[in-house]
Order: sequence, then C-alpha cells, then structure tokens
Amino acid sequence: ELVQALSSCCSTNALLQGKRVLITAGPTREAIDPVRFLTNRSSGKMGYAIAKAATAMGAQVTLISGPVALECPPRVQRIGVESAADMLVATQAHATDADIFIATAAVADYTPISVAAQKIKKNADVLELAMKKTTDVLATIKLAHPQLFTVGFAAETNDVMAYARGKLERKGLDMIAANSVADGKAFDQPTNALEVVWKDGHTSLPEMDKHTLAHELLKLVAAQYHTRKPFA
Amino acid sequence: ELVQALSSCCSTNALLQGKRVLITAGPTREAIDPVRFLTNRSSGKMGYAIAKAATAMGAQVTLISGPVALECPPRVQRIGVESAADMLVATQAHATDADIFIATAAVADYTPISVAAQKIKKNADVLELAMKKTTDVLATIKLAHPQLFTVGFAAETNDVMAYARGKLERKGLDMIAANSVADGKAFDQPTNALEVVWKDGHTSLPEMDKHTLAHELLKLVAAQYHTRKPFA
Repeated sequence: ELVQALSSCCSTNALLQGKRVLITAGPTREAIDPVRFLTNRSSGKMGYAIAKAATAMGAQVTLISGPVALECPPRVQRIGVESAADMLVATQAHATDADIFIATAAVADYTPISVAAQKIKKNADVLELAMKKTTDVLATIKLAHPQLFTVGFAAETNDVMAYARGKLERKGLDMIAANSVADGKAFDQPTNALEVVWKDGHTSLPEMDKHTLAHELLKLVAAQYHTRKPFA
Repeated sequence: ELVQALSSCCSTNALLQGKRVLITAGPTREAIDPVRFLTNRSSGKMGYAIAKAATAMGAQVTLISGPVALECPPRVQRIGVESAADMLVATQAHATDADIFIATAAVADYTPISVAAQKIKKNADVLELAMKKTTDVLATIKLAHPQLFTVGFAAETNDVMAYARGKLERKGLDMIAANSVADGKAFDQPTNALEVVWKDGHTSLPEMDKHTLAHELLKLVAAQYHTRKPFA
C-alpha cells in the first residue's frame, strides 16, 4: 500500500499539500410526499474520484454528499445530506475553513413548493406538481466567500461550451468543468470527458476513466489556484 | 453451502416445487427530462428476498426489477426495467407462463405527461409539472389473467389495514401484504412487518429481517395457493 501510495503520488503529491478542499457530490432528493421524490441521474462517481485524488495530492477533504451507492474514500470526511436545502446548509457550514471549493453535486434546480404529509393517493387523473427554484449553492457560497477558489461543474445536453462560459461569468467562478450528458453520457458511467474553462483559458480533457480524469482536473485546479494565490 | 441449503430448506422445500413465480421489485423512474426523474424510496430488498426464498422453496423465479443497488439472487431470471410503462410491458410478457404473481414493486402512480428532450434550464421561478396516472400493473395483469394467483403489496403511511382490504377487493387479488411506511419504516430498511390479508382471513407477521419475513410470507402464499388449487 505504501509502495502504491508512493508511486501514484510522487509527481502530484505536493500540489494540494495542506490545502482544505471542500467538495459536493451526488444528486439531491426533493420530497413530494413521505415516499416519493424528485432526483437526477448523478451517481456521485466524479465527485468521489476528485475527493480521493485530492487526498492523494495532500489535501484535507470534506465531502458533502447526496444519497449515492459509493464508499467514502479513506481519510475523507463525508457529510451525508438529502435535499438541496440540506446541501446548502452543510456546505455553508464548511466553506469558511476551505481553501478550494469544488461543486460537482447535481443539486436540484427545483423543489416542490409543498410536501404532502401523507402518501398522495392515486385518485386524480391529472396531478399538477408546483415547484419553486432552489437556492443556488455554488453562487451563494461564492458570493459569501469571494476569496474562496471555486470550481463549478456544468452538465448539459446541448451547447456545452457556451453554457459553461456563461455560468463561469454569471456566478463569478474561478474555473468550470463542463460535460455533455446527452445520450446517457457521463451520468452513472465510469468514464467522462471535460471541457475545463477559466477566465483567460480553457483546455479539453478527453474521455478517460473518472479517477484519471479527477487527477488531471486537479492538476489544472492546482495550477490556477497557485497562479492566483502564489504565496498561499 | 450444501449443508446450509439442506438445513434451511427442508421444512419448506416442497412448498413451491416446480411453480413459476413472477415477482416485480424496486421503484420505477419516470423521466422529466434526460437527467431528472421522479421515483420513490423502494430499495427492492423485500422483492429480492422473496425471489431468493421462492427459489429456495423450489420455484422457478422471474424477477422484473426497477433500478436498485442489489445483486440478483442465484438461479433467478432478472429483467431490468426503468419506467412504470416498461414494467407493465415486461410483466405482461411473463404473466402468461406464471403460476403465482407477487407484485412488490413500488410502481409510480403518476408520470409526467410530456418528457423534455433537453435538460430544463433554471429560468422560470415556478415550474408546473403536469402528471397523468400510470396504468396499474397489478390490476391489468389480474384482469388479463384471472386464474393467476396474485399477491399485491400495499405501502401506506396511514390506515394500513383499511387500504389493504380495499385494494384486495377492488383489484380482485388473492392476497395482499400491507406495511406501514410512516416515519421512514420499511423502505430501504433491513426489517419489515406485514399485515397479510386474503378473502376470508388475515394474519400479522411481526417485525423481522426481510429474508425471514419473505419465507414466512411465502408459507402463507403457498398455503392459500394450494387451498385454491388443490390439484395444481
């Protein structure tokens, strides 16, 4: 294990040494009633791979995770949450201490306006579910902590690059990693490809397994982080 | 393994010998757009435990399963499905050959009227999701196959027994197993308790692990099945 740790980390070990990295991962669940909920196809694999890779690069990692079927990586502090509202509260509580925030979670954009206290019966032919916007975790955290180096994710089915740069600017992010989820790509798959965009540059990481991709992404994150904060 | 198999099966081995048992399990997912869906808290554990127990009692088991994080039990034929519509089609295809049908799946009662082709953007402050009733898998199968010995499940948050007997009569079922899912009970838990109801009787199976419960339930199913069909 020591040999493996040494061989896998030597080239990138120091990159995040001693940095506190806060990561969100997985989907959220928005309750409709006690048994039904809205969710999405995020498996959490990308976020968990980043948590593992950041730990291997010397970071202290806190992972705020929605419900997923994954084991917590060794030495990572995991905090389990369910809804978008839960995720916001947990992330706010840990953002103050963080150096880098990487938001991979597929947080629900909408949540039911009211939650039924009892299981809704199958009576009405048509049911209208009224939903309201959730509070944007990424934008809220960046607004409250402008100095926090913040990396967003964007999963889009179309116009991936245009949405990515738009999201970067609109939310004032330091970096964004965008992927296409059209045709079942990325979500719940072992591989992924990313377009990584920052203020004055971008690069493409071609399709590879999510663990290798996590390392490559963190190398870019570390490079930009140390460029912005050369004395950190 | 042989010793374990012999010791665990001797008392109940013959009960379903050669019977073809069709089981549905797990939740369904009803797509809203390419990444979001409606679902429920069913883990599939009860259905998978029944599939395993029925196999141990000598049955040939076909398991129609929604998306779950469970291994298929040995010697069980599993058919994976996603939506309520998928589950209906797969169940119809296998009902003709079955002797006993046990419907544990938490099939969605409602599904979006239309599915967005692209990921819905977070623009509108309020989003109205219009949903229509799904076709009732259990009632449809029983209507098409009145001679098929059919066991329903009911998961209710309130008035469990009243709903159970109502469902038994309304859908013309042979037996129904009802549980309370109030306060997080049953769904995704290792234990469960059931109220088992048939035309002229009922019995309570107290809280126990789902594998033991599956065996106890199948003993009741086999007894009623052989009472109705003494020469089968």
